[in-house]
Amino acid sequence: MRLCFIGDSYVTGTGDQTCQGWAGRLCAMERRGGRDVTLYNLGVRGQTSCDIARRWLTETRSRLDGRHDGGVVLSFGVNDCTTTPRGQTRVTWADSMNATRGILEQARQTWPVLMVGPPPVGHEDHDWRIRALSDAMARLCADMKIPFLPTWEPLRARPLWCAEIARGDGFHPTGGGYAELARLVHDWPAWRKWMGAVSPLRVPS
Amino acid sequence: MRLCFIGDSYVTGTGDQTCQGWAGRLCAMERRGGRDVTLYNLGVRGQTSCDIARRWLTETRSRLDGRHDGGVVLSFGVNDCTTTPRGQTRVTWADSMNATRGILEQARQTWPVLMVGPPPVGHEDHDWRIRALSDAMARLCADMKIPFLPTWEPLRARPLWCAEIARGDGFHPTGGGYAELARLVHDWPAWRKWMGAVSPLRVPS
Repeated sequence: MRLCFIGDSYVTGTGDQTCQGWAGRLCAMERRGGRDVTLYNLGVRGQTSCDIARRWLTETRSRLDGRHDGGVVLSFGVNDCTTTPRGQTRVTWADSMNATRGILEQARQTWPVLMVGPPPVGHEDHDWRIRALSDAMARLCADMKIPFLPTWEPLRARPLWCAEIARGDGFHPTGGGYAELARLVHDWPAWRKWMGAVSPLRVPS
Repeated sequence: MRLCFIGDSYVTGTGDQTCQGWAGRLCAMERRGGRDVTLYNLGVRGQTSCDIARRWLTETRSRLDGRHDGGVVLSFGVNDCTTTPRGQTRVTWADSMNATRGILEQARQTWPVLMVGPPPVGHEDHDWRIRALSDAMARLCADMKIPFLPTWEPLRARPLWCAEIARGDGFHPTGGGYAELARLVHDWPAWRKWMGAVSPLRVPS
C-alpha cells in the first residue's frame, strides 16, 4: 500500500532525532510485521489547514495516480489555532472547517481516507483551542463516515508526551512522544483494517 | 537548515525497513551531531528526470519559500535508464540531460544545490546505462559549478550494497545499503560544508 501522510510539523516529525516522526515509526512497525507499505511523508512545518488544502491534491496525485493501492492519512489543525500578535487565531473557525471539509470531500472520491486528530502542545489556551477544533473535526468525519482518531486526550494523559513537548522546542516531542503517537495509530481499529488488506512483503531468498 | 531531497525510489528509501532511506539516515546522523536539520523527503517511486522536472519546483516552494535556510539535494536517473518492452530507454538521453539541466538551472537561482549520482542496481546492461548517465550528469554539474557525488563506483565496490540489491526486490537495498549511501554523502566535503553552516540544535534544559 502506498500511503500519503499529509499535514504539518507533527506529520513531518519535527524534533525527532531519527527523522521518522510518527508516520515513519508506524510504517516501520508495519514493515517489520511483513506488510508492504510505502511511506510518502507530506508534512510541512508551520502549515494550516488552508495551506494544506492548496497543495495536498497535486502532491498526492504525483504519488498515487494510476495505482489501486493508495491511501491518504490526514493530520493537521495545531497551526490553525496559533494566535497572531493581535490575539486572533491564524485561521478562523469557519475557514478551518471549510478547508478540512474540502480536503476530505475531494480525497474520499479517489482514495481510502483516515484522519488523525491534532495533538496537544503543552500551552494551555492553545491546547483548548486545539481540543475544540479536534472535536469539530471528529463530528465532521462522523458525518462523512471517515474514520477519525482523537489524539488530544490520550496524549495529554501520557507523561512522556507531556515531558518531551515541555523540554524540547516547547511545542514538539522528540522520539519518545512520536513513538507513543505511532502506537496509538498502530492500534486503531480503522488502521488495522487497512493493514489487513496490505500485501505481504516478498521474503528475500 | 530545511532540506528538500528530490528524486526517485532510492530517495524514498524503497525497501528500507526503517522507512528512513539514505536521506533520513543522513539527517538523523546530523541531528545526533547537534545540527538542526529538517528533512523533506520528496522521492517518488518510479519517477524519471522528466517526471521530477514537472513537480519538484512546486513541492520545494511549498516547503522553502520565504526561508533563508533552505537547500535542495537532487538524485535520480535510474528510471530514465530502464528499458521498455521495445528495447528503448524510458527517457532518451537528450531528454534526460535537458530535464536535469532545467532542474539544476532553476534550483540554483534560489537555493544551494547538491546532486547525488544514481546508484547501481545489479543488472548489468541497466547498470552500464546508469553509469553513462551518471558520468554525463557529473560533467553537466561541473560545467554549472554544482557539487556532484558519484555513487555508482563506490557502491559497486561495496559487498553489502550488492548483496542487498540482489536479494531484496532485485533493485533496491534494505537498511544496510541505504546506511552505506548515507555514509558516502555524510563524508562528502560538499555536504560537510553545508553542515558547517547549520545552526546548532537547542539543547533541552
